Amino acid sequence: MIKTDMLIIGAGPTGLFAVFEAGLLKLKCHLIDALPQPGGQCSEIYPKKPIYDIPAFPEILAGDLVDNLMEQIKPFEPGFTLGERAETIEKQEDGSFVVTTSEGTKHNAPVVVIAGGLGSFEPRKPPIQNIAKYENKGVAYMIKEPEDYRGKKVVIAGGGDSALDWAIYLSEVASEVSLVHRRNEFRGALDSVEKVSDLAQEGKINLITEAEVVGLKGDDKLDSVVIRHKGEASEEQIKETDFFIPLFGLSPKLGPISNWGLEIEKNAIKVDNSYDYQTNIPGIYAIGDVNTYPGKLKLILCGFHEAAVMCQSAYQKIFPDKRYVMKYTTVSGVDGFDGSRKEAKREVVKSIN
Amino acid sequence: MIKTDMLIIGAGPTGLFAVFEAGLLKLKCHLIDALPQPGGQCSEIYPKKPIYDIPAFPEILAGDLVDNLMEQIKPFEPGFTLGERAETIEKQEDGSFVVTTSEGTKHNAPVVVIAGGLGSFEPRKPPIQNIAKYENKGVAYMIKEPEDYRGKKVVIAGGGDSALDWAIYLSEVASEVSLVHRRNEFRGALDSVEKVSDLAQEGKINLITEAEVVGLKGDDKLDSVVIRHKGEASEEQIKETDFFIPLFGLSPKLGPISNWGLEIEKNAIKVDNSYDYQTNIPGIYAIGDVNTYPGKLKLILCGFHEAAVMCQSAYQKIFPDKRYVMKYTTVSGVDGFDGSRKEAKREVVKSIN
Repeated sequence: MIKTDMLIIGAGPTGLFAVFEAGLLKLKCHLIDALPQPGGQCSEIYPKKPIYDIPAFPEILAGDLVDNLMEQIKPFEPGFTLGERAETIEKQEDGSFVVTTSEGTKHNAPVVVIAGGLGSFEPRKPPIQNIAKYENKGVAYMIKEPEDYRGKKVVIAGGGDSALDWAIYLSEVASEVSLVHRRNEFRGALDSVEKVSDLAQEGKINLITEAEVVGLKGDDKLDSVVIRHKGEASEEQIKETDFFIPLFGLSPKLGPISNWGLEIEKNAIKVDNSYDYQTNIPGIYAIGDVNTYPGKLKLILCGFHEAAVMCQSAYQKIFPDKRYVMKYTTVSGVDGFDGSRKEAKREVVKSIN
Repeated sequence: MIKTDMLIIGAGPTGLFAVFEAGLLKLKCHLIDALPQPGGQCSEIYPKKPIYDIPAFPEILAGDLVDNLMEQIKPFEPGFTLGERAETIEKQEDGSFVVTTSEGTKHNAPVVVIAGGLGSFEPRKPPIQNIAKYENKGVAYMIKEPEDYRGKKVVIAGGGDSALDWAIYLSEVASEVSLVHRRNEFRGALDSVEKVSDLAQEGKINLITEAEVVGLKGDDKLDSVVIRHKGEASEEQIKETDFFIPLFGLSPKLGPISNWGLEIEKNAIKVDNSYDYQTNIPGIYAIGDVNTYPGKLKLILCGFHEAAVMCQSAYQKIFPDKRYVMKYTTVSGVDGFDGSRKEAKREVVKSIN
């Protein structure tokens, strides 16, 4: 059982910044995210895209925004449960909550903060009849640990950046990489497309275009895929492989959270924006794109504000008897849980004569 | 009469960022500030101090924060009335407002946004009986245009960073600079104190310590100051000068705004935080440290959020018949009023075979 002061579901920008605001109040945080790395959409969907409306950044790449936030919260040593989806929540007798993930990891905290963005990103699965049978037995929708593929045969399907980038990456790791795409055109960064093209010519990527994986074979685990080529007389090819990785994008779903008894409106969680962004269940807050209230704007900068305000209320919940007096970082500095201290240089008093 | 869509009173970080959010909605902004430069406290009081709680900046100097915001809003070409305090507001028949400054400059806009921080910074005046008589006639509490002092004799009083920095700066501009301080110790950046000490030894600053300016003389305008030296037998010295500049710090005062009929609570303006940060007077909003509501945090990042939310409501007020559909800058880019355009690189579709 992982125990923490504040359990944050969702490690996107809003969830990450909540760690900083909580840290200033000496609250420890742990984050759960279905994606294999922190940053939410910013890391998974558009790390190389510029964002223009983060205050005081005329332009920042989404990936850099996440890197900056990770550096900002580092002194507060957040814990992470990544690649696992928060599945169930149970209220305990002592008023705290236990949240269990898809992999069965249990977390306990007096306060739960849902910073789940548009929901947990679920992979779009190809319509292959028996695909569920091979999940975790050769079929993966997301690459969590590239080393799992070392020396193995891998078939990747897809025509976007993820498929291109992973084909390039795994061409150095796997014993054989095939990239199957139903068209000749790829939709991705120019240099990725060119790199794949080069690697295909060098024989390092087996490029199979105008084709689709339509079947999976194997007894206990996957041992081959059935590839159907387009054309007038469509033909099928059986290809031996250890892994099949369809990368057809992710689509966000509110998912299991929608069964937690929270008041939901238009796929978002209703909160009290007039005070502390708490949900209808005391002790559960919702911040960032996952919440809704009158006039709600789904902007990262709004999530930051909601995180700061929420933390003050959460602090009172966790320590009902303590009175917190807010201090400004410019005046008081920042004390990390790792023993680090940041502070402005002191004024100097100097005799001059 | 300066006409604009959104008149922002206060050019601190919150007011500046409001220009950006308004710009995304194609609203033009004009800012009024009592200080001679944009940035509010961040520029005037602690430009060299680090701030640690701006999201995605593990550390940023207050002055750099302002510079970044100025760069971010540049495409939206805001207007500025600086060094003038917003004094009166009058509602017009067409529902718009006219705001007049201390210097009589008039501004007209359908929406007024008060982003006044802790209030307008008023200089702390030394207790010299006839000082008011010489204001703008040789006495200045703030340096707006250093060139005004070229070739003139200047007496600066004070022992902090402002007094030190301006004494250094004007030693290159004025014909004679005297720095009067009641103690031998100065409270400022180490290098400023040392620099003043060096310039005093070189004869470029006339350093008069353990002394105070206690009187002012001159008929139509200032022509000399009376300096009293500490000591058992305190002696007085008359010093000819064109200017006397006491730099004893600034203290924020809500000032004339408190007479505008706005609902005030604990020196702050009450707003509707459950919707749009509007005050009790429709069409007048208050954002940032100047406002108050249940759970209010006086943090710069909260002002940013309030600015974004306020702009949506202001847009509806200015254009009641238009319906604005929010676009994300990452998707739609940013179109400046200066013809500039920022946008993410388009995805590339490339044939690979």
